[in-house]
Amino acid sequence: MSPKHLPNTPRPYQKSQYDPLALGSMIRYARGLEPCDLVIKGSQWLDVFQGKWQKGDLAIAAGTIVGVGESYVGKQVVDGSGFWVVPGFIDSHVHIESSLMTPRRFSETVLPRGTTTVIWDPHEIANVWGVQGIQWALDQSEPGPEILLSIFIMAPSCVPSTSQSLGLETSGADLRAQDLRGFRDHPRVLGLAEMMNYPGLLGGDPDVLTKLEDFAALPRDGHCPGLSGKDLNAYGVAGIHTCHESTTLGEAQEKLSKGIHVLLREGSCAKNASTLLPLLSDYSSAVLGFCSDDRNPLDIETEGHIDRIINLALMGGHGPAAVFRAASYGAARMYQLLDRGALAPGYRADLVCVAPKITTKGEPDWTSGIQIQKVLKGGQWIQPKSSAAPLVPVPKPPSAQTNLNIHTQFRGESLKDFLRIPTSDQDAPGSPVQVRVIGVIPQQIVTKSLTKTLVVTSLHTIEADLSQDILKIMVIERHHKTKSRGIGLVHGFGLKRGAIATSINHDSHNALLVGSSDHLMLMAWERLLDMDGGIVVVHESGEVAHLPLPYGGLMTDEPPGQVSEALRRLKSLAQRAGCVLEEPFLQLSFLALPVIGNLKITDQGLVDVTNMKVVPLRVNEGPGKVP
Amino acid sequence: MSPKHLPNTPRPYQKSQYDPLALGSMIRYARGLEPCDLVIKGSQWLDVFQGKWQKGDLAIAAGTIVGVGESYVGKQVVDGSGFWVVPGFIDSHVHIESSLMTPRRFSETVLPRGTTTVIWDPHEIANVWGVQGIQWALDQSEPGPEILLSIFIMAPSCVPSTSQSLGLETSGADLRAQDLRGFRDHPRVLGLAEMMNYPGLLGGDPDVLTKLEDFAALPRDGHCPGLSGKDLNAYGVAGIHTCHESTTLGEAQEKLSKGIHVLLREGSCAKNASTLLPLLSDYSSAVLGFCSDDRNPLDIETEGHIDRIINLALMGGHGPAAVFRAASYGAARMYQLLDRGALAPGYRADLVCVAPKITTKGEPDWTSGIQIQKVLKGGQWIQPKSSAAPLVPVPKPPSAQTNLNIHTQFRGESLKDFLRIPTSDQDAPGSPVQVRVIGVIPQQIVTKSLTKTLVVTSLHTIEADLSQDILKIMVIERHHKTKSRGIGLVHGFGLKRGAIATSINHDSHNALLVGSSDHLMLMAWERLLDMDGGIVVVHESGEVAHLPLPYGGLMTDEPPGQVSEALRRLKSLAQRAGCVLEEPFLQLSFLALPVIGNLKITDQGLVDVTNMKVVPLRVNEGPGKVP
Repeated sequence: MSPKHLPNTPRPYQKSQYDPLALGSMIRYARGLEPCDLVIKGSQWLDVFQGKWQKGDLAIAAGTIVGVGESYVGKQVVDGSGFWVVPGFIDSHVHIESSLMTPRRFSETVLPRGTTTVIWDPHEIANVWGVQGIQWALDQSEPGPEILLSIFIMAPSCVPSTSQSLGLETSGADLRAQDLRGFRDHPRVLGLAEMMNYPGLLGGDPDVLTKLEDFAALPRDGHCPGLSGKDLNAYGVAGIHTCHESTTLGEAQEKLSKGIHVLLREGSCAKNASTLLPLLSDYSSAVLGFCSDDRNPLDIETEGHIDRIINLALMGGHGPAAVFRAASYGAARMYQLLDRGALAPGYRADLVCVAPKITTKGEPDWTSGIQIQKVLKGGQWIQPKSSAAPLVPVPKPPSAQTNLNIHTQFRGESLKDFLRIPTSDQDAPGSPVQVRVIGVIPQQIVTKSLTKTLVVTSLHTIEADLSQDILKIMVIERHHKTKSRGIGLVHGFGLKRGAIATSINHDSHNALLVGSSDHLMLMAWERLLDMDGGIVVVHESGEVAHLPLPYGGLMTDEPPGQVSEALRRLKSLAQRAGCVLEEPFLQLSFLALPVIGNLKITDQGLVDVTNMKVVPLRVNEGPGKVP
Repeated sequence: MSPKHLPNTPRPYQKSQYDPLALGSMIRYARGLEPCDLVIKGSQWLDVFQGKWQKGDLAIAAGTIVGVGESYVGKQVVDGSGFWVVPGFIDSHVHIESSLMTPRRFSETVLPRGTTTVIWDPHEIANVWGVQGIQWALDQSEPGPEILLSIFIMAPSCVPSTSQSLGLETSGADLRAQDLRGFRDHPRVLGLAEMMNYPGLLGGDPDVLTKLEDFAALPRDGHCPGLSGKDLNAYGVAGIHTCHESTTLGEAQEKLSKGIHVLLREGSCAKNASTLLPLLSDYSSAVLGFCSDDRNPLDIETEGHIDRIINLALMGGHGPAAVFRAASYGAARMYQLLDRGALAPGYRADLVCVAPKITTKGEPDWTSGIQIQKVLKGGQWIQPKSSAAPLVPVPKPPSAQTNLNIHTQFRGESLKDFLRIPTSDQDAPGSPVQVRVIGVIPQQIVTKSLTKTLVVTSLHTIEADLSQDILKIMVIERHHKTKSRGIGLVHGFGLKRGAIATSINHDSHNALLVGSSDHLMLMAWERLLDMDGGIVVVHESGEVAHLPLPYGGLMTDEPPGQVSEALRRLKSLAQRAGCVLEEPFLQLSFLALPVIGNLKITDQGLVDVTNMKVVPLRVNEGPGKVP
C-alpha cells in the first residue's frame, strides 16, 4: 500500500481520548477524590471480557465510565440494585433512510430501545443526491443536543448498485472512486460501505479496485448473498471484512471461517436472525455483530431494533454473555470503535439497564427475553421525548431540486399510454402468451423468476390478471427527466382493488407503481406527484393514505409517532385493497434492486440478475420486439 | 483529544494492504486463475473465528493467504494431510535485550519455535543509549533477509523506571514526552510501552500525562503489579490497555474485568502462566495474550518461547481453539495488527504446523502438548539456520561510547575501599547490628525486605556472612562516570566460593556485583571492565566464565548456539560456586529495579519500593550516618 492512498486522519475512537486538560481530572474522579456526575449503585453489570456478571457501582463523569466495581460518591446517585447493566447496543449496518426518518428523528426512535451507536451506509440518499447526499448525511448526523445517538458513516461504494456501464438502471448519481476519496478523512467516516458489486470486484473492475485501495487502511463492508468457494476467498483477499447478506447458516459459517465477519440481520423485510443465530457462541461472540439494514419505524416501535435480535437470541437459549457481547463489543471491534462496547474505565458511558424476568427463586430467566428499563448515552439518561417539540427545519442540500424530477410526458393522463403493454399484431386476441413474472417471496429480498401464461386482449394488449395475482408494475426514472421507464408483471402482492405508488425504490430510487388496474395506478401516481415523493395507497373506494417524504423522496422530519401512524394507515389500506404482504412497501421497493436475484425491474426494464442483463417481458422474445 | 496530539501516520496493519498494482492479481490467485506460490494440501487448520478445525487447502501467494478450504494449484505443493495448522504466535510484550541477543539473532532463535511477531519494548537499550537506543532498535529490527520475524516497537515510557526527580537511580538517559513524540509516527511503532510509573500516573505527574496524551490514538501498555480497586480504575481511565505483571489469578481477573487486557507471562525469572491460565476460556481467548517479557536464550532453546505457554495451557487441559486464539488473534487485535492472527484470505501467511500426540484411535491428544513441525513466515518456510554464517557486523549508534563508562576511582584495587561497609565508632567489635537485607524469592521479580542481625568486625566493618547466606551486593554507575554506587546485602543466592558481575541491571543497567568475598567480587569486576560489559562468573579456584555483551553491555551478535553455550557455562560455574538460584543472572539483574517491591538496590543505595525512597542499610539508622 503506497502511503498516498492512506487517509491522514486517525480515527479518534480509542478508549480514553480526553481533552488534554481533562486527563488529570479523570484520574481524580476514578480515584474517588472528586464526586462523580452519576453513580449507579450496586448493580449487576456485564463484564464482556470474561463473560461474567460483576456486582458493584458504576461511576460516570464527563460522559465516561470512570470506575467500576468499587464504591463511589456521585452528584446523582441511582439505586441499581435491581439493574442488569450491559453496554449500549450497536447497529453495525443500517440505512437510516429505510426508517423513513431524518437522522435526528431516527436517533429519537432507536435510543430508547438501547441502541447507542449505528453505522450508517447512506447509499439511499447518495443515489438521489449524489456526493451532496453523503455530505448531507454527515452534516445531519453531527452529534448535538438533538442527536445523542452516535452515528458513523461508511462511504457508499456502489452508487448505483450496478456499474453504470452495464446500463441496468438509472440512478440520481454515479459515484466513482474520486468522488469518495474526499470523505475518507472525515473522523466519522469509518470506511467503505457494502461492496455490492462483487461481480465487478471478482472481474477486476478498475474503479472497484481503486475504491478498495483508497480505503485500504479502513474497514470495508461486504454484501455477497450466496457467494462461496474460491470467489468468496477472492472477496476476502480484496479486504472485505463483513457481510450481512447470509440467508442460510451454512453460508454464514463459510463466510466467518474465511474471516468475513457475519452481521446477523433482522430488517423489516429481510429477517435472517433466527436462521443465523446458531452461529453465535461464547467463542464467536467476539467477532459477530447485529444489524437492522432496512427496518421501518413501525417494526422498531412494535418489535424493537437491535433489542429485537437480542430477544430472539435469548429466547432461543443463547447465554446473555454471548448475546450482549455480539450486540456491543463484537460490533465495536469490527469497526475499530475502541472507545465503546464495554463497561470499563475509560469507555464511553453508553449503557442499557435491562430487566429479565425473575424466577420465583429470584434468578433471572433470560430465555423469556428482556425489557429495556433505562438507557444512558454519553452519561445522559434518555428521556421519553415529547416528539412534537418544535424543531428548526432540517435543511436540504442547496442544489436539491424537486424530488420527482419527472419528464412532462409522465404528467397527467399520458401515463396511461405507458402502462399499456402491447402485443405483436400476429398475436390473435385470446391466444396465450408466455411472460416473465417477478415472484415476490414474503420477507425476502430475493425474488423468483416465474413464467406465466396470459391471454392477448381484444385491444392487442397484455393486462393484469387478478385471478392469477399477476399485476402490472412500473418503474419511472425520476432524477434526470429522461423518459426511461420499465414495465413488468409481478406475482405475490394480492392487490385486488387498489394501487401503491412510491418514490422509494432500492437503490436508484426511481418512482415505482403497482396496482390492480391502470386507473388506480394512475390515481396513485398523481397523488405521488402532488406531494413530490413519499408513499401512497389508493383504494377503489376513493380512500387514500399517504406519507410525504420531502427529503429526497425518502425521508421525513415529522415526529416518529406520526410516521408510524401514517405507515399503519398505509398498511391497513393496502390490506383492505387485498394486499397479502406483511411489509408491502419495503418489499415493493426491493423489487427494483438488481444486485439481489433473481428477476427484478428497473427503469431500464426487467433485469435477469444472474446474467446481469435486461430481458424482455415475453419469454423467447427475440431482440428488438416490444416490450 | 486535540488533533495536534494525534499521530499522522495510520498504522498500515489492516488486512489486505497491497501494492496498488497487486490487488487485481491477488484476486486472480484467490479465484484459482493463476497458480499460487505455495499450497498446503488437505491440512486441518484452525478457524479462530468459530473455534473449529477446518479441513482443506491453504493457498499462499505474495506472502499472503489467498485461499482457504478450496482446492488450489501451486508452484510448490506440500502434503498437509498430517498437519494441524494454526496462526503464527505473537509475543505481546518482550524486551529482546533480555535474550542477550541482537534483534537479528533473536529472530533466528524464536522463529523456529513458531513465534512470527513480537512487540518489543526496547527500554533496556533506551536506558543505556537513550533516544539513539530506540532508533537503533528500530533500525536493527527492520524486516529484511536477516530479520524475517515481524518486530514492532512500543516507545519506552519510563526511562529511567522511576521519575528522575525522585533520585532513586541513575540511568543512561532520562526520556521525557518530547523525546518520544518523534517516534510516534514510525509505522512500526505501535504505541506507548509499559507505564511502570503508575504512582506518577495516579499522582498526575505532568510528564506522565503528556506521554499518555501524546499516544492517545494508540495502544498504551501497562505495568501495575498488585494495583487494584479505585487506583486500578484510574489506571484504566487514563487509557492503559494491558498489564503483564499479574502474579495471582484474582489480580488478573480484576484487571481483565476493568478492561485491562491481561498478558500471561512466562519469562525466565517471572513465571506466571500456570497461575494465570485459569483466566483463559473460549470467551476470554479473544482478549488475552501471551508474552515472555524477559526470557534468556537457554530457556528459549530448552523449553521454548510462546510455545512454552501454549504447552502449559494445553497440558493444563485448555482446548486448542482457546489456546491458539490467545496466542495469535487475541494479541494481534489488542495491538491493532489486523493483518495477522488468523488463517483467512488476505491475512499474512504466518503459520505454524503443530503436531499433537495422536491417540491409538487416531485422535489428537492435545493434553500432551505439541511439537512444532514447520513454520511459515510471510510465505517463507523457516529453515534451521547455520548460525555461524558470516554476517555484516551490526553497527552501534555513532556516539555510543564504551559500555562501562566508569569513574577512574572504580578502576583497579581502589574498588576494595568501596566494598567496605564501615560501622560507627560507637559499635564495639562483636556487637550485633540490625541490617536491611534484600530477600531473593526464586522465580519472582518481587523481593522480601528482610531484617537480619550481623556482628561488627574487629575492623569496625560489616561483612558478608556465608553461614546466613548474606552476601554483599553493589551497584556502580556506568553511564556518566559519576562516583555513585550503592552497597547492600542480599539473601538467597547461596554463593560460597565465587562472585558474579554484570552490566545488566534492570532498568538503569549500571554495573552489578555480588559475591562470597570482596576479593572474588573484585576479580569479577576487573574481568567485566576488561571485556567492557557482559556477564562474568569467577570461582575461587580461579576458573572464570564470561559472556561479553558489546551492544550497550546488554546484547551480543554471536550465534544463538554460542550464546546459550556461554550461558550454560556461566550457570554451571555459578552453581559450582554454590549458587542455588535456577536463573541467577536475570534474578540478580532485577534486584536493581525499583518499581517492583519490596527492597531493591540501585547506584543510589537501598530502595524501599513501597515508600519510593532510599533507606539506610542499618535499621533505625538516622539520616546522615554511613552507609
